[in-house]
Amino acid sequence: MDFSVSRRTLLKTGAAVMAASPHVPFFDPQSPVFRAHEGGKLGVHATQPLRDREDLALLYTPGVAEVSLAIAADPGLSTRYTARGNTVAVISDGTAVLGLGDIGPLGALPVMEGKAVLFKHFAGIDAVPVVMETGTVEELVEAIARIAPSYGGINLEDISAPRCFDIEEQLKERLDIPVFHDDQHGTAIVVLAGLLNAAKVLGRHLPDLRVVVSGAGAAGVAVTRLLQRAGVRDVVVCDSRGIISPERQDLTGHKSRLAASTNPRALHGRLGVALEGADVFVGLSCAKLPEELLALMAPGGFVFALSNPDPEVHPDVAARHAAIVATGRSDFPNQINNVLAFPGVFRGSLDAGARRITEAMKLAAAEAIFSVVADDLAPERIVPSPFDPRVAPAVSAAVAAVAE
Amino acid sequence: MDFSVSRRTLLKTGAAVMAASPHVPFFDPQSPVFRAHEGGKLGVHATQPLRDREDLALLYTPGVAEVSLAIAADPGLSTRYTARGNTVAVISDGTAVLGLGDIGPLGALPVMEGKAVLFKHFAGIDAVPVVMETGTVEELVEAIARIAPSYGGINLEDISAPRCFDIEEQLKERLDIPVFHDDQHGTAIVVLAGLLNAAKVLGRHLPDLRVVVSGAGAAGVAVTRLLQRAGVRDVVVCDSRGIISPERQDLTGHKSRLAASTNPRALHGRLGVALEGADVFVGLSCAKLPEELLALMAPGGFVFALSNPDPEVHPDVAARHAAIVATGRSDFPNQINNVLAFPGVFRGSLDAGARRITEAMKLAAAEAIFSVVADDLAPERIVPSPFDPRVAPAVSAAVAAVAE
Repeated sequence: MDFSVSRRTLLKTGAAVMAASPHVPFFDPQSPVFRAHEGGKLGVHATQPLRDREDLALLYTPGVAEVSLAIAADPGLSTRYTARGNTVAVISDGTAVLGLGDIGPLGALPVMEGKAVLFKHFAGIDAVPVVMETGTVEELVEAIARIAPSYGGINLEDISAPRCFDIEEQLKERLDIPVFHDDQHGTAIVVLAGLLNAAKVLGRHLPDLRVVVSGAGAAGVAVTRLLQRAGVRDVVVCDSRGIISPERQDLTGHKSRLAASTNPRALHGRLGVALEGADVFVGLSCAKLPEELLALMAPGGFVFALSNPDPEVHPDVAARHAAIVATGRSDFPNQINNVLAFPGVFRGSLDAGARRITEAMKLAAAEAIFSVVADDLAPERIVPSPFDPRVAPAVSAAVAAVAE
Repeated sequence: MDFSVSRRTLLKTGAAVMAASPHVPFFDPQSPVFRAHEGGKLGVHATQPLRDREDLALLYTPGVAEVSLAIAADPGLSTRYTARGNTVAVISDGTAVLGLGDIGPLGALPVMEGKAVLFKHFAGIDAVPVVMETGTVEELVEAIARIAPSYGGINLEDISAPRCFDIEEQLKERLDIPVFHDDQHGTAIVVLAGLLNAAKVLGRHLPDLRVVVSGAGAAGVAVTRLLQRAGVRDVVVCDSRGIISPERQDLTGHKSRLAASTNPRALHGRLGVALEGADVFVGLSCAKLPEELLALMAPGGFVFALSNPDPEVHPDVAARHAAIVATGRSDFPNQINNVLAFPGVFRGSLDAGARRITEAMKLAAAEAIFSVVADDLAPERIVPSPFDPRVAPAVSAAVAAVAE
C-alpha cells in the first residue's frame, strides 16, 4: 500500500477517475453526496445557556478567571473543567487519503469531518478535524505537539507511510495523551477480531495458521504486528516486489524490521510463492489478486480483500477458493470497518484517563469485537455490523479495563 | 500593559489572589462558576443524520471520496463542502490570559472556550479553541500556519506583547484567511465606537481631542493606531516609565515606532504631564490613575478605565472629573466589551470571503457599533449592551460591505 503518489499525479488520476469511474462522477452539486456535504458535516455548540449578563459573567469574564487559575495551579483539572477531556483531534496532512493518495489537507478535510461524525455517533466524543500542510516528520511532530494541550487524544489519519510510523512514535514519546494512527491500529484491531472469529467458525487455531499479508504500508505493518502479538507465528508480508525477506537488498526502515521478524520459513519470490498452502490472505494494497494465485491457497482458508472501494479480488471469485471472505465494503458480508474499533478505543482511553494506547489495549479491543458476535457466528458473520450498538460500549469497557 | 510575568510568579500571585480576593476564591467545585464549567462549555455535533449504511456511504466512504477529489481539484470548494467556511480557530499560547499573565495553554483553555461560546451565540460561527505550548515567534507562526487549512479564520487571543505584533503580522503575510488579534483590534474597534459616541454626545470633534493612552501593550498600540486612522491627531501614549517620546533611550520595536508617530507636542515626563489639559484618558494597563492626576484633565472629558476587573480609577471617582466614564465591567454603565466587535467582524469577513481584515473593515465595524446607539445616546449609554441583538448583524454587514 504505497500512497506516495505526487499530488500532481493524483489530480490527473482524480480527474480521470472522475470522468471514468462510477464511484467518482463529475462534480454535481445536485447529487446526494454533494448535497449531504453542503456547509460541512460538523458544528460546534455551547453546552451551557447564555441568556444574560449573569451567564456571561459565569462563562466568560470575570468568572472564568477562577477556573483558569485553578487549572494553572493544577493542570489535571483541565479534563474536568474544559471540553478537552472529551475532545479528540482527527489529524491529517492529506498525503494518503483513503485510496486517493496525496490530495492535500483541504482534500482530506471532508474525510476528517466524516471521521469526527463517527466519533460522535458511536462514542459521544467531540472530535475536531485538524488538517495540516505537510512537511518533514520533524515539522509535523513539532506542530502537533505544540497544539496537543487542546485535546484529550490524537487520532492520526491518512498520513503516508513510512512517515506515519515515525510521526506516531515520536508523538507517543513526547505527549502524555493517547496517540493512535487509525490506518494502522484500527485496521489491525478489526482484522484480528475477524480472524479470531473466522478461526473459531472453522475450528482453527491462530498459532497453526499460515498468513500472507499483501501490502507493507501503514496497515500491513500494524496488522502483522498485532497478529503476531495475538499468537500467529507464520506471517509472510509481500510488497509490490514480492516477499519481504532478509535476502532482499532494497529494504530499509520498517521493511527491514519486517524482514527480521516475519517469514519464518525464509521464503523468497513473488506473492504466489507466499500463497502456496497459505490459510489466510490479508489484502491491504491496491494490488489485484488473480484467481490462479488464489487457487494456490490451502483449502478452507480465509480471504480478507480489504482494498477499498475495489477489493483485491471479487468476493464471489474469492468464495470459490476460500471458506470465509471479508472485504472493506458494506455491500458484501463481513465488512472489516475501522468504525468497529476507534470509537470504543478512544472512549475507553478517555474514560480511564489513559496516557497511551498500549498493545494490551488493542488486543482487548479486538477480543471485545470478537466477543460481541461470538454466540452468533457464521462464515458470513465474523464481525458485527458497524451499526451494532453493542460494539462501542464493549470495546470501551475492555480497553478501559486494561488501560494504564 | 506588560503581561510578561513568569509563570512561576503568576502561580504565586494566583494563589495569593485566590486566597485574598473576592474575585478569585479558593477552588470550590460547588460554586456556580465551577459548576457551569463542569465538562467544559463546548460540544461538537453532526449536522447530518447518520441512521444507516446509506447515510454512512454518503457522509463517509465511499461517497466522501467524490467531495475530496472535487476539493483537491478546486480548493475553493472547501468553503462550501466542509465546515471550514464557518469555522474560526481561537488560538492562544496562554502567555497573557485576561489580566492573569502567563498561565500556560491549559489555564487559557477555559477562556478560549468561553470565547468560542460567544462566537456561536452572537454570530453563529463554529469556533474551536486551539491552545499551544508557547515558543519563539517563528515556532508559533510555523505551527499556526501549518494547521491553518482547517479554518476559515484565525482569532489570536491572549498572546503577550510585543510577540503578538510579529506573530499577527507574519501570519497575515503567509495566510489567505482573516487573522485578527482580538486583544488589539477588538479593543480598538470598541474604544473607537465609544469615543465617536462620546464626542457626539458632547458635540466634540475627534481631530480636536487630546487623547492619552495609558499602556503600550497589545491594546494600547492598536487603539492608538485606529484612533489616528479615524482622525485623532493628538495621541500621547504612556507606559510604566512615562510618556513615549523620541527622547527616550529605552525604546525598541513597536515602542520606538509609537514614539515616531504619536506625541505631536513632544511632551516628555510622567503620566501627569500627558494628562494636563487632556480630553480623553484611555486606560489599558493595570497602572492605577490617582485622583490628583485625573484632576489635571480638561473639564468635560472622557475617561475609559478599561483594566479588568479593577479599573484604573473607580467610576464614581472618575465621574467627579469627567463628563463620560466607561469601563470594562458589566456592573457599571458604558461597558467597553470586545464582544461588540469580534463576532460581527468575523461573520462579515467569512460571509464576504475576505482574505484579510483591513483597517477599512475595522473602521467600518466601529462606525456600525456607533450607529446602533446613535439615535439613543446619553452620557451613560455611549455603547450598546453586549446583548443588543442589532449589533452583530450591523457590524457584519458593514464589514462585509468594505471587505476585499
